[in-house]
Amino acid sequence: MSKLFHQQNSEQRLKAIDDAIESGALFQVRRALNALHPAEIADMLEAAPHGQRELIWELVEQENEGEVLIELSEDMRHSLVEEMDAGEILNAIKDLDYDDMADFLQSLPDEIIQQTLDGMDRQDRERVEAVLAYDENTAGGIMDTETVTVRADVTLDVVFRYLRHQHELPTHTDNLIVVSRYDQYLGILPLVDLLTSQPDLTVGAVMSTDLPGIPADMPARNVARLFEDHNLVSAPVVDGSGKLLGRVTIDDVVDIIREEAEHSVMSMAGLDDEEDLFAPIISSSRRRAIWLGTNLITALLAAMVISRFEGTLEAKVALAFLMGVIPSMGGVAGTQTLTLVIRGLALGQLGQSNTRSLFFKELAVSLINGILWGAAIFFVAWFFMQDAGIGVVIGIAMVINLLAAAVSGVYLPIIMRKLNIDPALAGGVVLTTVTDVVGFAAVLWLATLLLPLFQ
Amino acid sequence: MSKLFHQQNSEQRLKAIDDAIESGALFQVRRALNALHPAEIADMLEAAPHGQRELIWELVEQENEGEVLIELSEDMRHSLVEEMDAGEILNAIKDLDYDDMADFLQSLPDEIIQQTLDGMDRQDRERVEAVLAYDENTAGGIMDTETVTVRADVTLDVVFRYLRHQHELPTHTDNLIVVSRYDQYLGILPLVDLLTSQPDLTVGAVMSTDLPGIPADMPARNVARLFEDHNLVSAPVVDGSGKLLGRVTIDDVVDIIREEAEHSVMSMAGLDDEEDLFAPIISSSRRRAIWLGTNLITALLAAMVISRFEGTLEAKVALAFLMGVIPSMGGVAGTQTLTLVIRGLALGQLGQSNTRSLFFKELAVSLINGILWGAAIFFVAWFFMQDAGIGVVIGIAMVINLLAAAVSGVYLPIIMRKLNIDPALAGGVVLTTVTDVVGFAAVLWLATLLLPLFQ
Repeated sequence: MSKLFHQQNSEQRLKAIDDAIESGALFQVRRALNALHPAEIADMLEAAPHGQRELIWELVEQENEGEVLIELSEDMRHSLVEEMDAGEILNAIKDLDYDDMADFLQSLPDEIIQQTLDGMDRQDRERVEAVLAYDENTAGGIMDTETVTVRADVTLDVVFRYLRHQHELPTHTDNLIVVSRYDQYLGILPLVDLLTSQPDLTVGAVMSTDLPGIPADMPARNVARLFEDHNLVSAPVVDGSGKLLGRVTIDDVVDIIREEAEHSVMSMAGLDDEEDLFAPIISSSRRRAIWLGTNLITALLAAMVISRFEGTLEAKVALAFLMGVIPSMGGVAGTQTLTLVIRGLALGQLGQSNTRSLFFKELAVSLINGILWGAAIFFVAWFFMQDAGIGVVIGIAMVINLLAAAVSGVYLPIIMRKLNIDPALAGGVVLTTVTDVVGFAAVLWLATLLLPLFQ
Repeated sequence: MSKLFHQQNSEQRLKAIDDAIESGALFQVRRALNALHPAEIADMLEAAPHGQRELIWELVEQENEGEVLIELSEDMRHSLVEEMDAGEILNAIKDLDYDDMADFLQSLPDEIIQQTLDGMDRQDRERVEAVLAYDENTAGGIMDTETVTVRADVTLDVVFRYLRHQHELPTHTDNLIVVSRYDQYLGILPLVDLLTSQPDLTVGAVMSTDLPGIPADMPARNVARLFEDHNLVSAPVVDGSGKLLGRVTIDDVVDIIREEAEHSVMSMAGLDDEEDLFAPIISSSRRRAIWLGTNLITALLAAMVISRFEGTLEAKVALAFLMGVIPSMGGVAGTQTLTLVIRGLALGQLGQSNTRSLFFKELAVSLINGILWGAAIFFVAWFFMQDAGIGVVIGIAMVINLLAAAVSGVYLPIIMRKLNIDPALAGGVVLTTVTDVVGFAAVLWLATLLLPLFQ
């Protein structure tokens, strides 16, 4: 069963568990499973189909339940917690960091939150409540309230002695936080500086004041940028008056970076961030139905445009073969621009001063590609269909639609941002609606106008 | 000009610089610019249109150039380095970490690499060469060769005295690495444990042996998973015989996580990871032309399918209005499944043992949505076009195409993986080709078959 440890990924581990259960080695499975890191167990649960999923959760020992729950996607966590009462929840989470506890509680029904808080001792409850007071997408919402603080006027030697009396320090303690008597944040004392300085120096002489305290209401994504740009491992969080509230640690920042990136990928396909591989069929179907329904309405818009040109199509049914190429090319070109712009906005690289430059660049790129592929499709129509008229119509429509794609790709996400609509979620649908409608309209309008000249 | 510091993002900073330059305050601009963190300067450069970009680079002081270059996207870095000779490059990078130096050199022409290496002193050269020996996507390729090592048999007190003689420790030193006399990796001594233990204990008594050395050839993405799952800040890298080679630090891991996530977003739109907002028009056009050309060929495939049914279309031109809805819905449904599967593969959650379960789940979701939206489009055709025949044809085609979308969404990326093709890059194109061809073929074949019954 020790095989379980040596597998490279969740899927192989699941296979090993399956085999072991079949051979009746349930006790060994339990031991091997609980020897894994909680994040690895969570990964396995997400990779397990229903049935196996419930069995594995049964095998997780209670002391690991909290850590595993924290690592799961929200959907899966919900479905497991639904089966637990407040007492079981309290037992599962009692050893978590306060920020993880708060994060976990935030996703529960209010009633359960209150019952669980009531079951905690006073210190724990106050600390969790401090985090719960902030939005979960801010520095305050992801901070840990357990900090190791020191005063500026003591010597390093005193700090050494103080630390030696501690059994352990909170995880990711790479510095001690220097505060005034009134808990005002003053600076940090990195452990490496503590270790490489002379012990008779004072904390105030060695501490670093380069790192300002992070305001508790700073959006989590800005905190992540700060950590990335300044290579931080932990950083203090302060309130409006500069009082120390807690600290943000790199593990939470890594989660935010991963989530932010996944959000784009999933949203652009109209999926929920938390959608998991084996979500129940009904809830998956319902979520996706909304997206498909939206797409159906936009596709019907395009159908309406086409139906306005019934006469043109009847006169030249061969138009129906090639006309779909134009919205398709517009959709691809527009999605490229859109993706670039959404990323630029997310990274804060794009705003009023440089949007125009980007717009003209994208327009130029579209013009070049429009002419190139417009010419290509002209030759295709001419050569294979012996129809120069359709070639001219489709070729010009290509240029028009790629230009429309550039305009929408640049400005749709910018406008959506202003209207507080998430461009990663809605950008693609609206963009392809534009390129579909413009594409079909261009082909059929040009055909009505130009084809009589080629008779 | 201190305004520059208080701006939230690159675009606002660029605006501030523009304003300051117009008012002739070039000296202040330079000072304010160089006071920013190199990562922030790099962000600004990427957000700057051509012209402004070159001006800002001129203003970056030489001591910051290396750090800024490292933070830039590969494309931009290339265009700036092209203008520098080996001496200038050496000056710019001489204060970088060895892994960053190696990373930087790897992207240069061989000739320049050799010239730059020749210009280094022996110790630096050897350390960089040690990193260069490994693929840049492995633990060895991202490791830093600067480590602080201790022996197991000395007391903590000796370690304290040793550290006090160091001026500074490498960044992200959260533990000391315990090695044997022959540099074999034995374990780590976390700084927090060093600080909370009694000084008369030996390193061997306090060190942690839980963390095995990371093999130098472990793929970088696996290293990232390890750091995420175990909340690491730094971890030792070893060769095949267990000898310590260096260590990987969290800052490089964060970069990998960000890059991995961006790779999916960009690839799915057919963009290069390193594509930047203001890439030159010609190179942007060329890259995207390849993608658009590929799409054109696949769209022509669909056109060929349609053209086979010219007779059917001539008999019922109204089919041309609605038939585009079916490939469109198939594309959306397929992309959702595809995105889910690509993510599952990337996270190692999906493999032989659970693919079948996923396949049946996705098939069920598609069937439910196919029946739902197939019925909807039947009513649309019936109500608005008074044509039950077209309604039946389009409705059944919807179910068929959504099922085809589920099959392709699950199995295309899995097959591509086996053929060593990146599913994030090629999956979308192949999938929409399938859903286009199947969609059009289903509509027109069903029309040929069923419409005569409704005459």
